[in-house]
Amino acid sequence: MNPPIDTRVRLVEAARDLFLLQGYNATGIAQILRQSGANSGSLYHFFPTKEDLLIAVLEWYRDNIWEGLLQPVFTRIDDPIERVFGVLDGYRQMLMMLEFEQGCPIGNLSLELANSHPKARELMVLNFENWKAAIGQCITAARGRLPESIEPQRLATLVLCVMEGAVMLARSYRHIAPFDEAVLQLREYFDRLIAEGTRWGGPQRASLGRIVSN
Amino acid sequence: MNPPIDTRVRLVEAARDLFLLQGYNATGIAQILRQSGANSGSLYHFFPTKEDLLIAVLEWYRDNIWEGLLQPVFTRIDDPIERVFGVLDGYRQMLMMLEFEQGCPIGNLSLELANSHPKARELMVLNFENWKAAIGQCITAARGRLPESIEPQRLATLVLCVMEGAVMLARSYRHIAPFDEAVLQLREYFDRLIAEGTRWGGPQRASLGRIVSN
Repeated sequence: MNPPIDTRVRLVEAARDLFLLQGYNATGIAQILRQSGANSGSLYHFFPTKEDLLIAVLEWYRDNIWEGLLQPVFTRIDDPIERVFGVLDGYRQMLMMLEFEQGCPIGNLSLELANSHPKARELMVLNFENWKAAIGQCITAARGRLPESIEPQRLATLVLCVMEGAVMLARSYRHIAPFDEAVLQLREYFDRLIAEGTRWGGPQRASLGRIVSN
Repeated sequence: MNPPIDTRVRLVEAARDLFLLQGYNATGIAQILRQSGANSGSLYHFFPTKEDLLIAVLEWYRDNIWEGLLQPVFTRIDDPIERVFGVLDGYRQMLMMLEFEQGCPIGNLSLELANSHPKARELMVLNFENWKAAIGQCITAARGRLPESIEPQRLATLVLCVMEGAVMLARSYRHIAPFDEAVLQLREYFDRLIAEGTRWGGPQRASLGRIVSN
Protein backbone atom coordinates (compact mmCIF):
# COMPACT_ATOMS: atom_id res chain seq x y z
CA MET A 1 0.00 0.00 0.00
CA ASN A 2 1.32 3.42 -0.90
CA PRO A 3 1.78 5.96 1.90
CA PRO A 4 -0.84 8.76 1.99
CA ILE A 5 -0.17 11.88 -0.06
CA ASP A 6 -0.23 14.15 2.98
CA THR A 7 2.88 12.33 4.17
CA ARG A 8 4.56 13.67 1.05
CA VAL A 9 3.41 17.19 1.96
CA ARG A 10 4.75 16.81 5.49
CA LEU A 11 8.10 15.58 4.18
CA VAL A 12 8.44 18.51 1.78
CA GLU A 13 7.50 21.04 4.47
CA ALA A 14 9.93 19.53 6.99
CA ALA A 15 12.75 19.52 4.41
CA ARG A 16 11.89 23.06 3.34
CA ASP A 17 12.06 24.38 6.90
CA LEU A 18 15.25 22.50 7.79
CA PHE A 19 17.07 23.45 4.58
CA LEU A 20 16.13 27.09 5.21
CA LEU A 21 17.43 27.06 8.76
CA GLN A 22 20.53 24.84 8.45
CA GLY A 23 21.29 24.45 4.74
CA TYR A 24 21.02 21.35 2.59
CA ASN A 25 24.22 19.52 3.46
CA ALA A 26 23.88 20.09 7.19
CA THR A 27 20.39 18.56 7.24
CA GLY A 28 20.29 14.82 7.79
CA ILE A 29 17.62 12.43 6.55
CA ALA A 30 16.99 11.28 10.14
CA GLN A 31 16.16 14.85 11.13
CA ILE A 32 13.71 15.22 8.24
CA LEU A 33 12.00 11.99 9.31
CA ARG A 34 11.81 13.15 12.92
CA GLN A 35 10.38 16.57 12.05
CA SER A 36 7.85 15.23 9.53
CA GLY A 37 6.80 12.25 11.60
CA ALA A 38 7.13 10.07 8.48
CA ASN A 39 8.91 6.74 8.33
CA SER A 40 11.82 5.97 6.06
CA GLY A 41 9.67 3.71 3.84
CA SER A 42 7.43 6.65 2.96
CA LEU A 43 10.42 8.92 2.41
CA TYR A 44 12.05 6.53 -0.08
CA HIS A 45 8.70 5.88 -1.74
CA PHE A 46 8.23 9.56 -2.57
CA PHE A 47 11.89 10.64 -2.74
CA PRO A 48 14.38 7.92 -3.70
CA THR A 49 17.26 10.40 -3.23
CA LYS A 50 17.87 13.48 -1.09
CA GLU A 51 18.13 15.51 -4.31
CA ASP A 52 14.56 14.44 -5.24
CA LEU A 53 13.42 16.01 -1.98
CA LEU A 54 15.41 19.16 -2.78
CA ILE A 55 13.68 19.37 -6.17
CA ALA A 56 10.29 19.05 -4.47
CA VAL A 57 11.20 21.88 -2.06
CA LEU A 58 12.21 24.13 -4.96
CA GLU A 59 8.94 23.24 -6.74
CA TRP A 60 7.09 24.19 -3.58
CA TYR A 61 8.71 27.65 -3.68
CA ARG A 62 7.92 27.93 -7.40
CA ASP A 63 4.26 27.15 -6.75
CA ASN A 64 3.94 29.42 -3.70
CA ILE A 65 5.65 32.66 -4.73
CA TRP A 66 2.31 34.38 -5.36
CA GLU A 67 0.52 33.26 -2.24
CA GLY A 68 3.49 33.33 0.10
CA LEU A 69 5.38 36.38 -1.08
CA LEU A 70 3.60 38.67 -3.54
CA GLN A 71 -0.11 38.53 -2.78
CA PRO A 72 0.15 39.75 0.85
CA VAL A 73 2.05 42.82 -0.42
CA PHE A 74 0.03 43.45 -3.59
CA THR A 75 -3.35 43.35 -1.84
CA ARG A 76 -2.11 45.88 0.72
CA ILE A 77 -0.33 48.24 -1.71
CA ASP A 78 -1.57 49.58 -5.06
CA ASP A 79 1.27 51.80 -6.22
CA PRO A 80 3.63 49.71 -8.37
CA ILE A 81 6.83 51.31 -7.07
CA GLU A 82 5.66 50.95 -3.49
CA ARG A 83 4.95 47.30 -4.26
CA VAL A 84 8.63 46.80 -5.11
CA PHE A 85 9.64 48.27 -1.77
CA GLY A 86 6.80 46.44 -0.06
CA VAL A 87 8.28 43.13 -1.22
CA LEU A 88 11.67 44.20 0.12
CA ASP A 89 10.02 45.21 3.39
CA GLY A 90 8.58 41.71 3.63
CA TYR A 91 12.12 40.33 3.79
CA ARG A 92 12.96 42.95 6.42
CA GLN A 93 10.07 41.88 8.61
CA MET A 94 10.99 38.21 8.21
CA LEU A 95 14.61 38.91 9.17
CA MET A 96 13.57 40.86 12.26
CA MET A 97 10.84 38.46 13.34
CA LEU A 98 13.03 35.38 13.05
CA GLU A 99 16.09 37.15 14.47
CA PHE A 100 18.13 36.76 11.27
CA GLU A 101 17.97 32.96 11.43
CA GLN A 102 16.34 32.74 8.00
CA GLY A 103 16.99 34.55 4.75
CA CYS A 104 16.04 33.95 1.14
CA PRO A 105 15.65 30.17 0.74
CA ILE A 106 16.59 30.21 -2.93
CA GLY A 107 19.66 32.37 -2.30
CA ASN A 108 20.90 30.01 0.41
CA LEU A 109 20.47 26.88 -1.68
CA SER A 110 21.91 28.56 -4.73
CA LEU A 111 25.28 29.37 -3.16
CA GLU A 112 25.47 26.01 -1.43
CA LEU A 113 24.48 23.79 -4.35
CA ALA A 114 24.92 25.57 -7.69
CA ASN A 115 28.08 23.61 -8.46
CA SER A 116 26.97 20.18 -7.34
CA HIS A 117 23.24 19.89 -8.17
CA PRO A 118 22.52 20.85 -11.81
CA LYS A 119 18.86 19.76 -11.79
CA ALA A 120 18.14 21.80 -8.67
CA ARG A 121 20.07 24.71 -10.14
CA GLU A 122 17.59 24.98 -13.01
CA LEU A 123 14.71 25.26 -10.55
CA MET A 124 16.59 27.92 -8.60
CA VAL A 125 16.92 29.90 -11.83
CA LEU A 126 13.19 29.50 -12.45
CA ASN A 127 12.47 30.85 -8.96
CA PHE A 128 14.76 33.83 -9.53
CA GLU A 129 13.09 34.44 -12.91
CA ASN A 130 9.61 34.43 -11.38
CA TRP A 131 10.71 36.87 -8.68
CA LYS A 132 12.30 39.15 -11.27
CA ALA A 133 9.24 38.94 -13.53
CA ALA A 134 6.95 40.08 -10.69
CA ILE A 135 9.20 43.04 -9.84
CA GLY A 136 9.69 43.77 -13.56
CA GLN A 137 5.91 43.98 -13.99
CA CYS A 138 5.71 46.54 -11.17
CA ILE A 139 8.42 48.62 -12.82
CA THR A 140 6.71 48.30 -16.21
CA ALA A 141 3.45 49.48 -14.64
CA ALA A 142 5.32 52.58 -13.40
CA ARG A 143 7.09 53.25 -16.69
CA GLY A 144 5.31 56.55 -17.28
CA ARG A 145 7.06 57.92 -14.18
CA LEU A 146 10.53 56.65 -15.08
CA PRO A 147 13.02 57.85 -17.71
CA GLU A 148 12.40 56.24 -21.10
CA SER A 149 15.84 54.66 -21.15
CA ILE A 150 15.10 52.42 -18.13
CA GLU A 151 14.60 48.74 -19.05
CA PRO A 152 12.27 47.22 -16.44
CA GLN A 153 13.83 43.74 -16.53
CA ARG A 154 17.33 45.09 -16.02
CA LEU A 155 16.24 47.28 -13.14
CA ALA A 156 14.43 44.26 -11.68
CA THR A 157 17.69 42.30 -11.81
CA LEU A 158 19.33 45.06 -9.78
CA VAL A 159 16.51 44.95 -7.24
CA LEU A 160 16.89 41.17 -6.91
CA CYS A 161 20.65 41.50 -6.39
CA VAL A 162 20.18 44.21 -3.77
CA MET A 163 17.64 42.03 -1.94
CA GLU A 164 19.90 38.97 -1.94
CA GLY A 165 22.95 40.97 -0.88
CA ALA A 166 21.05 42.89 1.79
CA VAL A 167 19.57 39.70 3.27
CA MET A 168 23.04 38.15 3.28
CA LEU A 169 24.56 41.10 5.15
CA ALA A 170 21.73 41.32 7.68
CA ARG A 171 22.12 37.61 8.47
CA SER A 172 25.89 37.94 8.78
CA TYR A 173 25.76 41.07 10.93
CA ARG A 174 22.71 39.80 12.85
CA HIS A 175 21.52 43.37 12.49
CA ILE A 176 19.09 45.09 10.18
CA ALA A 177 21.35 48.15 9.62
CA PRO A 178 23.14 46.96 6.44
CA PHE A 179 19.82 45.81 4.96
CA ASP A 180 18.28 49.20 5.64
CA GLU A 181 21.29 51.06 4.25
CA ALA A 182 21.16 49.14 0.98
CA VAL A 183 17.40 49.52 0.55
CA LEU A 184 17.51 53.23 1.44
CA GLN A 185 20.19 53.74 -1.19
CA LEU A 186 18.12 51.80 -3.73
CA ARG A 187 15.18 54.04 -2.82
CA GLU A 188 17.40 57.06 -3.44
CA TYR A 189 18.01 55.68 -6.94
CA PHE A 190 14.29 55.14 -7.59
CA ASP A 191 13.48 58.66 -6.28
CA ARG A 192 16.07 60.04 -8.68
CA LEU A 193 14.59 58.06 -11.59
CA ILE A 194 11.08 59.26 -10.75
CA ALA A 195 12.22 62.88 -10.35
CA GLU A 196 13.83 62.68 -13.78
CA GLY A 197 10.94 60.77 -15.38
CA THR A 198 8.28 63.20 -14.20
CA ARG A 199 10.27 66.42 -14.60
CA TRP A 200 8.90 67.17 -18.07
CA GLY A 201 5.48 66.39 -19.49
CA GLY A 202 4.57 64.95 -22.89
CA PRO A 203 6.89 64.63 -25.86
CA GLN A 204 9.53 66.91 -24.31
CA ARG A 205 10.19 64.33 -21.62
CA ALA A 206 10.82 61.61 -24.16
CA SER A 207 13.42 63.56 -26.11
CA LEU A 208 15.14 64.83 -22.98
CA GLY A 209 15.23 61.32 -21.60
CA ARG A 210 17.21 60.28 -24.62
CA ILE A 211 19.68 63.13 -24.34
CA VAL A 212 20.31 62.51 -20.65
CA SER A 213 20.71 58.78 -21.16
CA ASN A 214 23.58 59.25 -23.65
CA MET B 1 58.19 17.63 17.74
CA ASN B 2 55.77 20.16 16.37
CA PRO B 3 54.85 19.96 12.67
CA PRO B 4 56.48 22.65 10.47
CA ILE B 5 54.63 25.93 10.06
CA ASP B 6 54.34 25.54 6.28
CA THR B 7 52.12 22.52 6.94
CA ARG B 8 49.74 24.97 8.60
CA VAL B 9 49.83 27.16 5.49
CA ARG B 10 49.10 24.17 3.25
CA LEU B 11 46.19 23.12 5.44
CA VAL B 12 44.66 26.61 5.37
CA GLU B 13 45.07 26.89 1.60
CA ALA B 14 43.56 23.47 0.98
CA ALA B 15 40.60 24.22 3.26
CA ARG B 16 40.17 27.67 1.66
CA ASP B 17 40.01 26.18 -1.85
CA LEU B 18 37.71 23.31 -0.91
CA PHE B 19 35.32 25.49 1.11
CA LEU B 20 35.13 27.89 -1.86
CA LEU B 21 34.34 25.14 -4.33
CA GLN B 22 32.10 22.86 -2.27
CA GLY B 23 31.07 24.75 0.83
CA TYR B 24 32.01 24.10 4.44
CA ASN B 25 29.68 21.26 5.38
CA ALA B 26 30.28 19.33 2.16
CA THR B 27 34.05 19.36 2.70
CA GLY B 28 35.37 16.44 4.71
CA ILE B 29 38.48 16.42 6.88
CA ALA B 30 39.87 13.48 4.85
CA GLN B 31 39.65 15.56 1.69
CA ILE B 32 41.50 18.47 3.31
CA LEU B 33 44.24 16.08 4.42
CA ARG B 34 44.51 14.59 0.92
CA GLN B 35 44.66 17.96 -0.82
CA SER B 36 47.16 19.47 1.63
CA GLY B 37 49.34 16.39 1.89
CA ALA B 38 49.33 16.84 5.68
CA ASN B 39 48.68 14.08 8.19
CA SER B 40 45.90 14.12 10.75
CA GLY B 41 48.37 14.66 13.62
CA SER B 42 49.46 17.98 12.08
CA LEU B 43 45.86 18.96 11.40
CA TYR B 44 44.78 18.44 15.01
CA HIS B 45 47.92 20.13 16.27
CA PHE B 46 47.11 23.35 14.45
CA PHE B 47 43.33 23.04 14.30
CA PRO B 48 41.71 21.02 17.09
CA THR B 49 38.27 21.53 15.47
CA LYS B 50 37.00 22.07 11.94
CA GLU B 51 35.74 25.48 13.05
CA ASP B 52 39.31 26.47 14.02
CA LEU B 53 40.29 25.78 10.42
CA LEU B 54 37.33 27.86 9.20
CA ILE B 55 38.49 30.75 11.40
CA ALA B 56 41.99 30.47 9.91
CA VAL B 57 40.54 30.57 6.38
CA LEU B 58 38.54 33.71 7.21
CA GLU B 59 41.67 35.27 8.73
CA TRP B 60 43.49 34.44 5.51
CA TYR B 61 40.88 36.40 3.53
CA ARG B 62 41.08 39.27 6.05
CA ASP B 63 44.85 39.44 5.61
CA ASN B 64 44.82 39.13 1.81
CA ILE B 65 42.07 41.51 0.69
CA TRP B 66 44.60 44.15 -0.36
CA GLU B 67 47.02 41.91 -2.20
CA GLY B 68 44.47 39.50 -3.65
CA LEU B 69 41.59 41.79 -4.51
CA LEU B 70 42.26 45.51 -4.37
CA GLN B 71 45.89 46.09 -5.29
CA PRO B 72 45.69 44.48 -8.78
CA VAL B 73 42.80 46.85 -9.60
CA PHE B 74 44.11 49.97 -7.87
CA THR B 75 47.54 49.82 -9.55
CA ARG B 76 45.90 49.53 -12.97
CA ILE B 77 43.18 52.17 -12.47
CA ASP B 78 43.52 55.65 -10.96
CA ASP B 79 40.03 57.06 -11.21
CA PRO B 80 38.19 56.28 -7.95
CA ILE B 81 34.81 55.54 -9.58
CA GLU B 82 36.47 53.31 -12.17
CA ARG B 83 38.20 51.52 -9.30
CA VAL B 84 34.79 50.58 -7.89
CA PHE B 85 33.77 49.09 -11.23
CA GLY B 86 37.23 47.60 -11.66
CA VAL B 87 36.74 45.62 -8.44
CA LEU B 88 33.37 44.41 -9.74
CA ASP B 89 35.00 43.50 -13.05
CA GLY B 90 37.51 41.39 -11.13
CA TYR B 91 34.61 39.22 -9.91
CA ARG B 92 33.30 39.05 -13.48
CA GLN B 93 36.62 37.78 -14.78
CA MET B 94 36.87 35.21 -11.98
CA LEU B 95 33.35 33.93 -12.72
CA MET B 96 34.10 33.61 -16.44
CA MET B 97 37.55 32.10 -16.01
CA LEU B 98 36.42 29.47 -13.51
CA GLU B 99 33.14 28.81 -15.37
CA PHE B 100 30.97 29.99 -12.45
CA GLU B 101 32.32 27.32 -10.12
CA GLN B 102 33.54 29.91 -7.61
CA GLY B 103 31.96 33.07 -6.27
CA CYS B 104 32.60 35.31 -3.30
CA PRO B 105 34.10 33.09 -0.58
CA ILE B 106 32.74 35.21 2.26
CA GLY B 107 29.26 35.33 0.75
CA ASN B 108 29.16 31.55 0.42
CA LEU B 109 30.30 30.89 3.96
CA SER B 110 28.05 33.58 5.34
CA LEU B 111 24.81 32.06 4.04
CA GLU B 112 25.88 28.56 4.96
CA LEU B 113 27.16 29.24 8.47
CA ALA B 114 25.78 32.51 9.85
CA ASN B 115 23.33 30.66 12.10
CA SER B 116 25.57 27.92 13.36
CA HIS B 117 29.08 29.41 13.71
CA PRO B 118 29.02 32.67 15.71
CA LYS B 119 32.81 33.05 15.97
CA ALA B 120 33.23 32.65 12.21
CA ARG B 121 30.32 35.03 11.66
CA GLU B 122 32.24 37.85 13.35
CA LEU B 123 35.16 37.34 10.97
CA MET B 124 32.80 37.34 8.00
CA VAL B 125 31.47 40.71 9.16
CA LEU B 126 35.03 41.99 9.43
CA ASN B 127 35.72 40.87 5.85
CA PHE B 128 32.54 42.59 4.62
CA GLU B 129 33.51 45.73 6.56
CA ASN B 130 36.98 45.81 5.00
CA TRP B 131 35.51 45.40 1.51
CA LYS B 132 32.98 48.17 2.16
CA ALA B 133 35.65 50.46 3.61
CA ALA B 134 37.79 50.10 0.48
CA ILE B 135 34.85 50.88 -1.82
CA GLY B 136 33.71 53.64 0.55
CA GLN B 137 37.15 55.27 0.27
CA CYS B 138 36.87 55.26 -3.53
CA ILE B 139 33.48 56.93 -3.32
CA THR B 140 34.78 59.46 -0.78
CA ALA B 141 37.66 60.27 -3.13
CA ALA B 142 35.07 61.01 -5.85
CA ARG B 143 32.79 63.06 -3.60
CA GLY B 144 33.35 66.29 -5.53
CA ARG B 145 31.66 64.68 -8.54
CA LEU B 146 28.68 63.28 -6.61
CA PRO B 147 25.63 65.03 -5.13
CA GLU B 148 26.30 66.32 -1.63
CA SER B 149 23.57 64.17 -0.13
CA ILE B 150 25.34 60.91 -1.01
CA GLU B 151 26.85 59.12 1.99
CA PRO B 152 29.85 57.12 0.77
CA GLN B 153 29.46 54.28 3.28
CA ARG B 154 25.80 53.77 2.44
CA LEU B 155 26.48 53.75 -1.27
CA ALA B 156 29.33 51.29 -0.62
CA THR B 157 26.86 49.00 1.17
CA LEU B 158 24.69 49.07 -1.95
CA VAL B 159 27.69 48.21 -4.14
CA LEU B 160 28.56 45.28 -1.87
CA CYS B 161 24.97 43.98 -2.01
CA VAL B 162 24.88 44.30 -5.79
CA MET B 163 28.18 42.39 -6.06
CA GLU B 164 27.01 39.58 -3.78
CA GLY B 165 23.65 39.29 -5.51
CA ALA B 166 25.16 39.48 -9.00
CA VAL B 167 27.72 36.78 -8.21
CA MET B 168 24.95 34.61 -6.78
CA LEU B 169 22.82 34.96 -9.91
CA ALA B 170 25.71 34.35 -12.31
CA ARG B 171 26.59 31.16 -10.44
CA SER B 172 22.97 29.98 -10.42
CA TYR B 173 22.40 30.79 -14.10
CA ARG B 174 25.88 29.61 -15.09
CA HIS B 175 25.85 32.67 -17.26
CA ILE B 176 27.31 36.15 -16.95
CA ALA B 177 24.17 37.92 -18.25
CA PRO B 178 22.46 38.60 -14.89
CA PHE B 179 25.77 39.83 -13.41
CA ASP B 180 26.24 42.21 -16.35
CA GLU B 181 22.65 43.45 -16.14
CA ALA B 182 22.98 44.30 -12.46
CA VAL B 183 26.35 46.02 -12.84
CA LEU B 184 25.17 47.98 -15.91
CA GLN B 185 22.18 49.19 -13.94
CA LEU B 186 24.44 50.17 -11.03
CA ARG B 187 26.61 52.04 -13.54
CA GLU B 188 23.50 53.83 -14.76
CA TYR B 189 22.94 54.98 -11.17
CA PHE B 190 26.53 56.19 -10.78
CA ASP B 191 26.31 58.00 -14.15
CA ARG B 192 23.17 59.72 -12.94
CA LEU B 193 24.84 60.71 -9.65
CA ILE B 194 27.85 62.08 -11.49
CA ALA B 195 25.68 63.96 -14.01
CA GLU B 196 23.83 65.57 -11.10
CA GLY B 197 26.95 66.17 -9.03
CA THR B 198 28.79 67.95 -11.83
CA ARG B 199 25.85 69.79 -13.40
CA TRP B 200 26.44 73.03 -11.47
CA GLY B 201 29.72 74.55 -10.39
CA GLY B 202 30.61 76.14 -7.07
CA PRO B 203 28.19 77.09 -4.32
CA GLN B 204 25.15 76.75 -6.59
CA ARG B 205 25.72 73.02 -6.83
CA ALA B 206 25.75 72.63 -3.08
CA SER B 207 22.46 74.40 -2.50
CA LEU B 208 20.76 72.68 -5.42
CA GLY B 209 22.03 69.35 -4.15
CA ARG B 210 20.18 69.95 -0.93
CA ILE B 211 16.94 70.92 -2.62
CA VAL B 212 16.97 67.86 -4.88
CA SER B 213 17.74 65.53 -2.01
CA ASN B 214 14.62 66.57 -0.08
